[in-house]
Amino acid sequence: MELKKLVIQEAAKIDEVMRQDIDGLASIFDPLLIDILNYGLFSGGKRLRPFLTTSAGRFSGCQDEGLYHLATSFEYLHAATLIHDDVIDKAAERRGSASVVERFGLAEAILAGDFLHAHSMQLVSRFGGPKALAIFCQATAAMVDGEYRQLRNAENLDQSEIDYFTVVKGKTALLIGAACEIGGLYGGGDEDICSGLRNFGIHLGCGFQIIDDLLDYRGDSEKTGKATGNDLAEGKMTLPVIYALQRANEQDRHTLLSILADPQERGQSLAQVSDLIERHQGFSEARKKAEEMIDQAMAALPALENQGSLNERAVLEQLCTYVLNRDK
Amino acid sequence: MELKKLVIQEAAKIDEVMRQDIDGLASIFDPLLIDILNYGLFSGGKRLRPFLTTSAGRFSGCQDEGLYHLATSFEYLHAATLIHDDVIDKAAERRGSASVVERFGLAEAILAGDFLHAHSMQLVSRFGGPKALAIFCQATAAMVDGEYRQLRNAENLDQSEIDYFTVVKGKTALLIGAACEIGGLYGGGDEDICSGLRNFGIHLGCGFQIIDDLLDYRGDSEKTGKATGNDLAEGKMTLPVIYALQRANEQDRHTLLSILADPQERGQSLAQVSDLIERHQGFSEARKKAEEMIDQAMAALPALENQGSLNERAVLEQLCTYVLNRDK
Repeated sequence: MELKKLVIQEAAKIDEVMRQDIDGLASIFDPLLIDILNYGLFSGGKRLRPFLTTSAGRFSGCQDEGLYHLATSFEYLHAATLIHDDVIDKAAERRGSASVVERFGLAEAILAGDFLHAHSMQLVSRFGGPKALAIFCQATAAMVDGEYRQLRNAENLDQSEIDYFTVVKGKTALLIGAACEIGGLYGGGDEDICSGLRNFGIHLGCGFQIIDDLLDYRGDSEKTGKATGNDLAEGKMTLPVIYALQRANEQDRHTLLSILADPQERGQSLAQVSDLIERHQGFSEARKKAEEMIDQAMAALPALENQGSLNERAVLEQLCTYVLNRDK
Repeated sequence: MELKKLVIQEAAKIDEVMRQDIDGLASIFDPLLIDILNYGLFSGGKRLRPFLTTSAGRFSGCQDEGLYHLATSFEYLHAATLIHDDVIDKAAERRGSASVVERFGLAEAILAGDFLHAHSMQLVSRFGGPKALAIFCQATAAMVDGEYRQLRNAENLDQSEIDYFTVVKGKTALLIGAACEIGGLYGGGDEDICSGLRNFGIHLGCGFQIIDDLLDYRGDSEKTGKATGNDLAEGKMTLPVIYALQRANEQDRHTLLSILADPQERGQSLAQVSDLIERHQGFSEARKKAEEMIDQAMAALPALENQGSLNERAVLEQLCTYVLNRDK
């Protein structure tokens, strides 16, 4: 089956399982909480994290339906993170609609995130067991850690590639690694398979983030649904910028740094900064790095004796190609 | 040993275990996060929740040191709750010092709470196993639910005793019940013992909250460290008010309700409202209810064949007496 169709089909299945779950919660919990959960959970989204869990689970031999319940925990955690992020960023919008904090208020948003946190962990523990929960909690802690490093680095224009990947691993890639590893664990994969799947996910996550960085400068906002130049406006040191700064001559480096240091300049210098990054191979080097990451992801996929899993391998490989070539 | 000494001794032990734990985290996580954890965790507090876990664990026969690690999870969760509460209430102070949000900022406070959440759950799972984690997550979810019910009830002056206890159970008592139940589970208690300990904790928690309500009107602020009249100023429908409204004549009821409905009136009518509550037995009835709760807590304590646990029973019973008679 074509990847896109499969992703859509699996997303529908995940949505169905989440809806049943929330319906079950509705008999126990406050109606306002249930409203917020429905609002925050079903406002679009490709359900890529649960897709990775179910794909990795099947890759390592799982057939049963519990896998979907386990997989929803990654979507719940993801939703919790987005809800808290919007509180932190005071973001009024999310995916073209009012954010949870904008629509329901501060207390409601923080508490809904906390609820989803606890709920996701309960599901991982119930369907995945203590080992899965330990992995899940470690990834959550790493995510918070990545946010802190980013907060502390916010004003630091002298960031290295290593700083960048430390933050990206924490904020994005380890959780994607955990989604794959926990799927593999549920499917009965041994240590080699699980750690292969974990590495697959971590590299895929890094590749995904680099492409995100590129799209923020050069994406077609009609396709991505996001305006370009957000990262620059926020002064984010993304990989194209870091590479350009490394390669630029003294003068261009100085120009770039002074734009990056000035919130007002940043908002109106997208074209100029893009030119500078382009001139010093920031985009092409970042693209190369994304390709490297995706190559490493593919290489990390463990070999399996079971030939029935060839199909599942193809799904994960297609996902790699999609991540690299996506334009939205 | 005298209860007070024992509580202090156990709190010191809990603090030691937490400090070692945080020191361990310091080699992995961002220094800013570690600073915030140290700040948020070691700013006073009687460590009553972990005390209940260790006491309940010993009550059901546990001797080993892992119990302290399990017990810290309740303090971590409690700290997470307080940190998020202060964000929600925009509270600049906590226990006489700057709150985490005031001192470190919004993003930092929300993320530190999220980290402590995940960390507490990981510890419960690791030291208590999946059953303990399910209980812990349910109590966390109930806590959020209690907050929502309170938010929804905020402007509702027509609250019943049942509304009150629904919120108190969720916000306070179920978690105290979980601290006791999980301690009992760790100590190897069977289903009867664990559910007895749980009921003990739930009733103790309700008693605790009612006394809190009373102290807010009639406490000696030099002893409690809190100004009186906070609940009234916030328009909180606490048990003394609910009972007074039930018993008041039409005129006094009208007076009480109009003060409660007016934020400005509330701030300057403590003496008048106290008189009205007193006149209509609000304080004495609430006190009676607290005594009832504590009686039920004691009655819920399961009988144990092991005579060695007599001492542990005495500790839990003394705690009941303390909760009822505390003036701070």
